[in-house]
Amino acid sequence: MSVGGVGEFGLIDRVTARLSYGSTVLLGPGDDGAVVAAPDARVVASTDVLVEGRHFRRDWSSARDVGHRAAAANLADVAAMGATPTALLVALCVPPDLETAWAEELADGLGAEAAAVGASVVGGDMSASPTLTIAVTALGDLGGVAPVTRSGARAGDVLALAGRTGHAAAGLTVLSRGFRTPRLLVEAYRRPEVPYPAGPEAARRGATAMIDVSDGLLADLGHVAKASGVRIDVHRDAFEVPRQMRDAAQALGVDPYSWILAGGDDHALAATFPAGVALPDGWRAIGRVGDGAGVTVDGGRYDGPTGWDHFR
Amino acid sequence: MSVGGVGEFGLIDRVTARLSYGSTVLLGPGDDGAVVAAPDARVVASTDVLVEGRHFRRDWSSARDVGHRAAAANLADVAAMGATPTALLVALCVPPDLETAWAEELADGLGAEAAAVGASVVGGDMSASPTLTIAVTALGDLGGVAPVTRSGARAGDVLALAGRTGHAAAGLTVLSRGFRTPRLLVEAYRRPEVPYPAGPEAARRGATAMIDVSDGLLADLGHVAKASGVRIDVHRDAFEVPRQMRDAAQALGVDPYSWILAGGDDHALAATFPAGVALPDGWRAIGRVGDGAGVTVDGGRYDGPTGWDHFR
Repeated sequence: MSVGGVGEFGLIDRVTARLSYGSTVLLGPGDDGAVVAAPDARVVASTDVLVEGRHFRRDWSSARDVGHRAAAANLADVAAMGATPTALLVALCVPPDLETAWAEELADGLGAEAAAVGASVVGGDMSASPTLTIAVTALGDLGGVAPVTRSGARAGDVLALAGRTGHAAAGLTVLSRGFRTPRLLVEAYRRPEVPYPAGPEAARRGATAMIDVSDGLLADLGHVAKASGVRIDVHRDAFEVPRQMRDAAQALGVDPYSWILAGGDDHALAATFPAGVALPDGWRAIGRVGDGAGVTVDGGRYDGPTGWDHFR
Repeated sequence: MSVGGVGEFGLIDRVTARLSYGSTVLLGPGDDGAVVAAPDARVVASTDVLVEGRHFRRDWSSARDVGHRAAAANLADVAAMGATPTALLVALCVPPDLETAWAEELADGLGAEAAAVGASVVGGDMSASPTLTIAVTALGDLGGVAPVTRSGARAGDVLALAGRTGHAAAGLTVLSRGFRTPRLLVEAYRRPEVPYPAGPEAARRGATAMIDVSDGLLADLGHVAKASGVRIDVHRDAFEVPRQMRDAAQALGVDPYSWILAGGDDHALAATFPAGVALPDGWRAIGRVGDGAGVTVDGGRYDGPTGWDHFR
């Protein structure tokens, strides 16, 4: 059955019937707005949009995978502010000939990724469109800590990372060359493994700046360096290249560090901590903050690609 | 200059430079997430998406008009829960050849409509897409009142309306027949006049159910009737047909009540109040709630069109 066949309200009924609601949801879908708990009396909010052909392909990812990725991109932004995600809202634009099963499985993926952090899909909107588009807004609660922005890094701070980089970019390269393995990389692209609790934990431990690595490590650290007025140096030997990545890089003629340093979409969290602070669980040192501007690798300029601009 | 020429971050810089931030904004755009005040410790959230060719046309509405409409559709949903809007987040998908001025003026319209209710555009995302798409999420604060849902209407309640209906639908019909006047109707389509404060005021005065009229009065009251398990009767003589609407209807061979009863997009608020409650300023009685199911007009079935399904 196509989306056009069941109609807007029919599809909304089918999708909301598959969702479940956690303790943060005071009023779920079905009204003009949802009501979500905001115990901190401040709410963190972030929006990310995925466009078919640009951010995902239906032949590379299942609907469920796309749901996981769309949710992860947004939930990671909330975690990177030091907040715990509470809710997602989803605007879904679909071609009328799309099978309803695709939209239902997308909702399953969105709901499952949200549930893994205690958040729920609380509302949304649907429209027909020639271009399959998924815009997600995530909300989160700071639980009494100050939000961790991009502007607080100071010379002398330690640069630390939670989660992995380069895996999703390697998976995307593999898929774009027509392969379906290695599984480690392809699955990393399809469903990022985001270290969500590392965000609020870093905030509680005094992280001075934090960012979600979505455009590429060096590009995203560039935003922190600029906002904080510092230079950030990344230590290349802090990154282990897994065997599957090394093999794929060799087979495809790619420098694996271009994935690790410039590949996006794993949604690792990068943060700076005052020197001497014991890094929380899940965080490891990968560099240092100094005086100056920009991002360097082992003290020097990096000449590879550095990130992703969605208009170029 | 095209959007593709300035790039994603260039366009974000240009747009955010035009925005201003009210007292609800604790941290605005430029980080992974915004931080918005939620003094009530609950946040109301709603999402609506506008797709070019389906919800707007660039030859019928200026970018600024589209911004006003996109904001209004979302802010009205928040008001219809009884909440005061605090913030908007905007996911914007644009063809790379779009002029940056269009996106900038869209932001002006979004910001101006938000500012009129004390809310601000606090964040967003941008992507290239073949289809110009604007997904907006609105947040709001309940200020200590219970959210007014669709399910609380009771037999004996008075049905009341704040704002107008039929004007935007009439304006859309006029535009679709190639005319640019009457101004009253065309402007109503381009920039809805939403009675935002009437929402929280109705909540404080004990409204039992409330809804934003976006799909058409009878269709939207149908949602209330279904959720509340009641019949809602609309009194046709409660609606005055303005002269410009009557003239346009006659010229185009349309029943003006099809606009008033079934036309969407004015974003009036419809609410039910216990009999005997003095209606707050800006609200007028337009009908009655009774036992039964569905929506009637003057006690009988309405045979005209009743609303809008975005897939049909």
